[in-house]
Amino acid sequence: MRLASLLGPDLKETLRMDPEALRDALEDLHPEDIAELAGDLDPEDAVMLLQSLPSDVAAAVTGRLLPERQTVIMEGLGMEPAVELLREMPPDDRVDLLQSLPDATSASLIAHLEQAEPEAAEEVRELRAWDEDTAGGLMTPDFVVLPPDTKVWQAIEELRRIAREKDAETIYSIYVCGYGDKLLGVVSLRDLILSDPAQALSDVMTENVVRVAPTDDQESVALVIRRYDLGAVPVTDAQGRMLGIVTVDDVVDVVVEEATEDAQLMGGVVPLEDSYFDTGLRDFVWKRATWLIILFIAQMLTANVMEGNRATLQFALELAIFIPLIISSGGNAGSQSSSLLIRALAVGEVRPKDWSRVLGREVFIGVFLGCILGLIGFARAYFSASAVEPLQLALVVGASVVAVVTMGTLIGSLLPLGIRRLGLDPAVSSTPLIASLSDVLGLLVYFAIARLILTVIL
Amino acid sequence: MRLASLLGPDLKETLRMDPEALRDALEDLHPEDIAELAGDLDPEDAVMLLQSLPSDVAAAVTGRLLPERQTVIMEGLGMEPAVELLREMPPDDRVDLLQSLPDATSASLIAHLEQAEPEAAEEVRELRAWDEDTAGGLMTPDFVVLPPDTKVWQAIEELRRIAREKDAETIYSIYVCGYGDKLLGVVSLRDLILSDPAQALSDVMTENVVRVAPTDDQESVALVIRRYDLGAVPVTDAQGRMLGIVTVDDVVDVVVEEATEDAQLMGGVVPLEDSYFDTGLRDFVWKRATWLIILFIAQMLTANVMEGNRATLQFALELAIFIPLIISSGGNAGSQSSSLLIRALAVGEVRPKDWSRVLGREVFIGVFLGCILGLIGFARAYFSASAVEPLQLALVVGASVVAVVTMGTLIGSLLPLGIRRLGLDPAVSSTPLIASLSDVLGLLVYFAIARLILTVIL
Repeated sequence: MRLASLLGPDLKETLRMDPEALRDALEDLHPEDIAELAGDLDPEDAVMLLQSLPSDVAAAVTGRLLPERQTVIMEGLGMEPAVELLREMPPDDRVDLLQSLPDATSASLIAHLEQAEPEAAEEVRELRAWDEDTAGGLMTPDFVVLPPDTKVWQAIEELRRIAREKDAETIYSIYVCGYGDKLLGVVSLRDLILSDPAQALSDVMTENVVRVAPTDDQESVALVIRRYDLGAVPVTDAQGRMLGIVTVDDVVDVVVEEATEDAQLMGGVVPLEDSYFDTGLRDFVWKRATWLIILFIAQMLTANVMEGNRATLQFALELAIFIPLIISSGGNAGSQSSSLLIRALAVGEVRPKDWSRVLGREVFIGVFLGCILGLIGFARAYFSASAVEPLQLALVVGASVVAVVTMGTLIGSLLPLGIRRLGLDPAVSSTPLIASLSDVLGLLVYFAIARLILTVIL
Repeated sequence: MRLASLLGPDLKETLRMDPEALRDALEDLHPEDIAELAGDLDPEDAVMLLQSLPSDVAAAVTGRLLPERQTVIMEGLGMEPAVELLREMPPDDRVDLLQSLPDATSASLIAHLEQAEPEAAEEVRELRAWDEDTAGGLMTPDFVVLPPDTKVWQAIEELRRIAREKDAETIYSIYVCGYGDKLLGVVSLRDLILSDPAQALSDVMTENVVRVAPTDDQESVALVIRRYDLGAVPVTDAQGRMLGIVTVDDVVDVVVEEATEDAQLMGGVVPLEDSYFDTGLRDFVWKRATWLIILFIAQMLTANVMEGNRATLQFALELAIFIPLIISSGGNAGSQSSSLLIRALAVGEVRPKDWSRVLGREVFIGVFLGCILGLIGFARAYFSASAVEPLQLALVVGASVVAVVTMGTLIGSLLPLGIRRLGLDPAVSSTPLIASLSDVLGLLVYFAIARLILTVIL
């Protein structure tokens, strides 16, 4: 990375004056670092840089660029070099790249790829059939498969040949398949090295292979890989046929991506597709405005509740003074519950069917926390400068805090479970949504308690 | 997993009647699945189950249990079997286990381990020196290291020997070290298989090895592994000496753990150490009460602001009606900004020094979103049933929404950056904290605008 920043200032010049020297200088850099450089250059210079690289490196670099930059590069390179670059990519990256390009560009690239390497174009069509967020969308069809009667020494020879000729995403696992590509077992390179060279793969393979279906959600694929500490997981269809593998490095990205999506949803934003700075302003405003407007309109109900209780307010203006304090305490307690449950659901610690256990816990916690805050609220109201009848006011405030905190806790815990039950992402029960709900309900509770206590006492 | 649930009901019986049969039945199960079984059993049965397993499997299972259950098992097994189990564990898991046990249990286990295997006890002491959340705390000292003049065929022989004799965490990378354990390069098993057996490792190794320091935070280790798609990253000291390696499976767990911590902080909860259901009620209440009480006390400032504006409220009670709507719009906008920036900081998309770019973006967005919501608010107030002077009221509400939304956006975006600048986790600028701040400031702004417009017009 130090090298990258040293190269920075002179890069443009070297690019024009002496591309050969640049090529040598970049040789030792990781494609990720070259991608960082290429991301910081002007578009034309980035195209020149990519042109100066060997095509396998250029392919690795392009696969790591942001979608916008990828489009510029692929359109700037010209059809032939672009197709050459596609051919050098691993199939899963190739599909990801084609999917992020504008439709016209992608279609014409596929048409040209069809000419140059029909199997690659066919592979693209097959992989594109799966949803991006599923095992099928993550998998690569480049894996090593051998029949069960292969001897260990043959398998090692075969691996050598495969690793040299084509780029299997990982040669660290050999998938042993029988008739009709049916997955029978897996042999790790470690097992292979440790085994007697004359044994057959069927003797050394592990049979109960953990596997996923192509339609499985990427989050559940990540759970499987995490649970069993796998380097890669095979994807098989209903007949047990090998379709591809999902590797752990893709899963790390999935985990990070899902956490970011959840955090954005929880904050009340439609998840961004690009990074913070790479999201265009128009897109950005739109993804925030959607939820903000919905929440604002929902919050307008608070004004209706207030209008409905105008007479009570006129009668005791002190009540107004504690409104922000009381309604926010419900929102805060609810935000705690929802963030705990959204994460617990995401990592699989809690399932929707555990709702009654959750309910028991949260009711207890809500009442307990409500009582602590209620006491503080009681004291604050009792010693309030403006109170005409301090004890009554303090009773109303204290009791309302207990009720509102309990209610907020319940909304915050049950809403994520309910939303998950409906098959949606529980993270949409965002903190602002829970705060809005609990504001409206909190006001209703507050005025009800106020009318009750004031009527009883007066 | 299906097998696990089938075994469930009969497990206890088999355990007592025919431990041999159980042992056979469990042989094909992954340690993770056995750990799930052991987690569901009564403590005594879990100890019996562990006793019935071969010690290497028992070690793998114990390493995957929750801390509380681990304590029960280790204390229930008796000293000798417990030490035996420790010896079978990979060093990083061994240290994690010892750290999660009560101090007395852990100390006496280490004393007995000292007798049985002094090197293992020494390793434990060395690894414990590093903070749990750093590269040093994650690393394992079990890696394959060979001198640079080793021939490729010798290296393969050596790997065979190592993989058979002791459990290197990964044999997929060989670390080539020179005088004084200085890391010179790395050779993957893939490179090894592809190379001419007569070549020296120094000829086939990759020299610019990406590495981390033992004091590096676990989040930055995760970033490095993600960035370069590594299976493992070497940890070296200031002199370039190899201390250990951090493997990708540990990093997946780190990424998930950090995301959970962030989500809990963002929701206003002190992060839990155990899972949702495994956290004791007392601990749970305390971790929520801390923040809730702080926020409640901060929110009491809203009552002070309201009291200070009692005269204005008495003069125009309509103003009270829109208070919940106006202050919540600031909180919601702020919650969006903070969740976007907390994640962007966590994944490294935004750095604190980018604050001026962030500020420019967020001011624009804040004003824009404020204007949209302000218009809706203006309309709502103008057609309000209770308004005596609808135009004035609508002007006050509309202008306040614009100001409050802009302010909320700025607080939500700059607070995480500032907190990160102070070296703290930006996620502590939780949604409830931002909502509380923006409630107090929002009320001040609202009353100021109200007095201004009402004075000018009246």
